[in-house]
Amino acid sequence: MKHTINLLVENNVGSLLRIAGMFSGRGFNIDSISVGSSEEEGLSRMTIVTHGDDEIIEQINKQLNKCINVVKVFDLTGEAFVHRELALIKVQATPTERSEIMQIAEVFRAKIIDLSPTALTVEATGTEDKINAIISMLQPFGLKEVSRTGRIALKREFQGVTV
Amino acid sequence: MKHTINLLVENNVGSLLRIAGMFSGRGFNIDSISVGSSEEEGLSRMTIVTHGDDEIIEQINKQLNKCINVVKVFDLTGEAFVHRELALIKVQATPTERSEIMQIAEVFRAKIIDLSPTALTVEATGTEDKINAIISMLQPFGLKEVSRTGRIALKREFQGVTV
Repeated sequence: MKHTINLLVENNVGSLLRIAGMFSGRGFNIDSISVGSSEEEGLSRMTIVTHGDDEIIEQINKQLNKCINVVKVFDLTGEAFVHRELALIKVQATPTERSEIMQIAEVFRAKIIDLSPTALTVEATGTEDKINAIISMLQPFGLKEVSRTGRIALKREFQGVTV
Repeated sequence: MKHTINLLVENNVGSLLRIAGMFSGRGFNIDSISVGSSEEEGLSRMTIVTHGDDEIIEQINKQLNKCINVVKVFDLTGEAFVHRELALIKVQATPTERSEIMQIAEVFRAKIIDLSPTALTVEATGTEDKINAIISMLQPFGLKEVSRTGRIALKREFQGVTV
């Protein structure tokens, strides 16, 4: 089962190094890691997606809480949360294929942000599933370059509400 | 001056550890780092934004090329490239403030993805400048949580074209 852990960490390379080192040294998995500025000056928010049984996740949380650069750990397991990922996808596209690709982009509410006679670049935002889906739809045209950010996530304000 | 470096790396924790370790050990700066799946099975694409004079950037490129987990280094310095960042921003919002926040979101083409009587969460995609601008506009309402991915970037197909 996948687990999403949200961390507030000091924003320096040392934090990343210590956390990556902890995961690597203890053989914990990282499915994705994303880090950027947070709402507090000097602190970054890091989102780690990992997998493992309950015991491993408990160990990961314990170890993260012990890290000197980690200010706060929010384990989103069992919580309702919103999550998104961003992808830039450069696809081979002849002028005749262009309209088909633009239709696919429209369905996924993605944007064309670069264009040449032989390729175009699509910007897509959504859950990993949605990003996987648009990539699968674009793959037959020929993927030139794909860059993805990994998941970022915030807890939902209303918990336990399923509309 | 800011430099954007795009790397194809083996997708394991060791890659992140080695690269973060190299930056940390040599005292190089990392402004942001973002890593996610690439177009090739087993490889991740990592985008690092760093700063320093020409000599330092040359050293960074040399060291990255030496890293065993790094398959390819693309220094985007001096190239035309597209770059984007994703942010989730949770803002305090009373029902009466909501419409003002929704107007701001609309101008920035951002989406409201979570709502409660006291807060809402905005999803925004754009350049760092755009993300900084929307955060500045939302700050007066009270930022509860902000999560940003850091920059991802792809080279433009047409180089040297300024329209």
